[in-house]
Amino acid sequence: MEREVVLSFLPTFALILFLSKLSGNISARFGQPAVFGELLAGLIFGPAILNVVHMNEFIALFSEIGVIFLMFLAGLQTDLKELKRVGLAAFSSASFGVILPLFFGAIFSLYSGFGISESVFVGAVLTATSVSISAQTLMELGRLRSKVGMTILGAAVIDDVLGIIILSLVIAFELGRGNIYFLLFRIFSYLFLAILVAKVFLKRYLDFFSRLKVSRPLIAGSIVLILIYSWCAEVFGSLAAITGSYLIGTMISFTEYSERISDRMSTLTYSIFAPLFFFSVGLYVERGGLESALYLYAIVIFLIAVFTKIVGCGFGALITRFNFMDSLRVGTGMISRGEVAIIVATIGLTSSVLSRPVFSVLIVVAILTTVITPILLRALYRTERDL
Amino acid sequence: MEREVVLSFLPTFALILFLSKLSGNISARFGQPAVFGELLAGLIFGPAILNVVHMNEFIALFSEIGVIFLMFLAGLQTDLKELKRVGLAAFSSASFGVILPLFFGAIFSLYSGFGISESVFVGAVLTATSVSISAQTLMELGRLRSKVGMTILGAAVIDDVLGIIILSLVIAFELGRGNIYFLLFRIFSYLFLAILVAKVFLKRYLDFFSRLKVSRPLIAGSIVLILIYSWCAEVFGSLAAITGSYLIGTMISFTEYSERISDRMSTLTYSIFAPLFFFSVGLYVERGGLESALYLYAIVIFLIAVFTKIVGCGFGALITRFNFMDSLRVGTGMISRGEVAIIVATIGLTSSVLSRPVFSVLIVVAILTTVITPILLRALYRTERDL
Repeated sequence: MEREVVLSFLPTFALILFLSKLSGNISARFGQPAVFGELLAGLIFGPAILNVVHMNEFIALFSEIGVIFLMFLAGLQTDLKELKRVGLAAFSSASFGVILPLFFGAIFSLYSGFGISESVFVGAVLTATSVSISAQTLMELGRLRSKVGMTILGAAVIDDVLGIIILSLVIAFELGRGNIYFLLFRIFSYLFLAILVAKVFLKRYLDFFSRLKVSRPLIAGSIVLILIYSWCAEVFGSLAAITGSYLIGTMISFTEYSERISDRMSTLTYSIFAPLFFFSVGLYVERGGLESALYLYAIVIFLIAVFTKIVGCGFGALITRFNFMDSLRVGTGMISRGEVAIIVATIGLTSSVLSRPVFSVLIVVAILTTVITPILLRALYRTERDL
Repeated sequence: MEREVVLSFLPTFALILFLSKLSGNISARFGQPAVFGELLAGLIFGPAILNVVHMNEFIALFSEIGVIFLMFLAGLQTDLKELKRVGLAAFSSASFGVILPLFFGAIFSLYSGFGISESVFVGAVLTATSVSISAQTLMELGRLRSKVGMTILGAAVIDDVLGIIILSLVIAFELGRGNIYFLLFRIFSYLFLAILVAKVFLKRYLDFFSRLKVSRPLIAGSIVLILIYSWCAEVFGSLAAITGSYLIGTMISFTEYSERISDRMSTLTYSIFAPLFFFSVGLYVERGGLESALYLYAIVIFLIAVFTKIVGCGFGALITRFNFMDSLRVGTGMISRGEVAIIVATIGLTSSVLSRPVFSVLIVVAILTTVITPILLRALYRTERDL
């Protein structure tokens, strides 16, 4: 019976919320971003250590909505003038931050004895960036709207586009299907149409909804838009769902409703959806998921994942006249692979390009990069205050 | 893959939100409660007519959380002094409103040729009251805190307790298991412990949560409490989940955080969860779900469902010195069977006490009573204003 399944989820849901907020608080008391505590709580109470909470479809639903809403809020807070100003830096960062992980990930995998398609796919997984954790950390530090914050956000969107293209090329090469021109056509049609539709109808749509004689019409209307933009980004645009919600967020930031929507959506996001997303990341790690023969491989892949982003994205920023510290921050903000790498790795597993052991390595690496990003990023800003 | 299932739900989710708010608005423009439009939207776009949206576990989850949050808000708005003042009237209404539907539902079913256990079970299903729709209508009319509103809320809680006892007796009689003393012990232990724990720890708990260094701690902390109280009510107390959330709502209404929580929880509830609940009610009706031989039976059961509550609950209020119009309003506010009757009927179906055709009749009757309640209730208040 559906209802029994639903009912049995309620205590799990309560437990996750409770643990997330408590761990977030402990993390904040120790001077770390709250989001670090929430990620850690998932890792500790998930299958990896205490084995109390397991992934299920309800957690998957709430965390998907959570990350979509988070990126919408990041979009709302995006300063588009600043984003244009850092456009070149973002593009440069994203490009070097894609080339380096791809190259070193593939080369080291080949050297470790894996086949060519699997090796190239490992590289493709390492190009992914999940910007939500960095965005959240920068929000907590009050730095999301800074030059560094905008560069990271912009680079993550470009990184998403580049990553999707590379991924599709690898799969097309492997399976002999897919068409790169058609893919590019889909990506740019989506972006073009999504922006055009918003430019023409967004204000009228929000005006219309804000006048409905029902409770909370404006927020409900915004949620409808966010869900549709996210879904279309993935289904029609071949992009990540969060790219769609980020996009509609930036468009709504120009309207008079921006602040009202931001306040209400923050309540919705942080009280119920976002904690489930942060917590859920840790649930992907399983105890004994790694074969001991792969420990060394995993460690090197992890180091490649971290340093190719710091060096690649940092160098990309440096050559567009960022100073050394800001370049380092941009590079560090791009380390987190999060759910994007997990999704890409899952595609690799289901299309038989990746073997199960290599898949497990990539999942662990994705989680670890996500857990260390808020700590490193915060450390790089603390240094500034000490100076 | 879990993620594909989740992703494919997003457009459905957007559609339901969009249709709900739009229909609610149309209903409000025609002078009807917005909730009537939302119920009707589910009926029209569900399997009964257009067959566009179907029930699934995600809709079930959101609507379950929706009705739990709605009853929490009703609890927050409950004026406990007023509730005590109408305690006798509520008890009297609930009692007559349970006896009459039970008696007439069972007698008419026996007369129609059904067996004794099935007939008594039909009566038991008809005793159920779902107060959420009436509470919502009274909120829209600004009358929830009136003498009538408080009587309806109080009677619904008492009705829930009585209904559960009768239901358990019927199942115990049918299946030869269950123990009425143990059942009463569970109900009263739950109520006693739930109130005791809240009296001792609630203020400290909310104080603690409100000071956490994370986003929206107070609301997240409240949600944790609401979910636990609801779950315990059903699992340990043998009561409906909504009785638990209503209870913790009334307890929180005494604290200093009442208003802040009310405002934030309203946003959460009305922008995303409640619309899914109201819409989902109509999804239970299926086209051709009724065998034509049962049309007459269904019509009579529907009339019994409506009039036994109006007469029973109304009479119960009248003898405790309510005037005629207020008694009529109390009786009308108790007509809606909603999800409570659907849940009870489902128990009957799965424990083989109810046959599939009779089950379908009860579902249709539950929906119809729910759809007409807001219209009738509003009409009874409009009369007053016209005078």
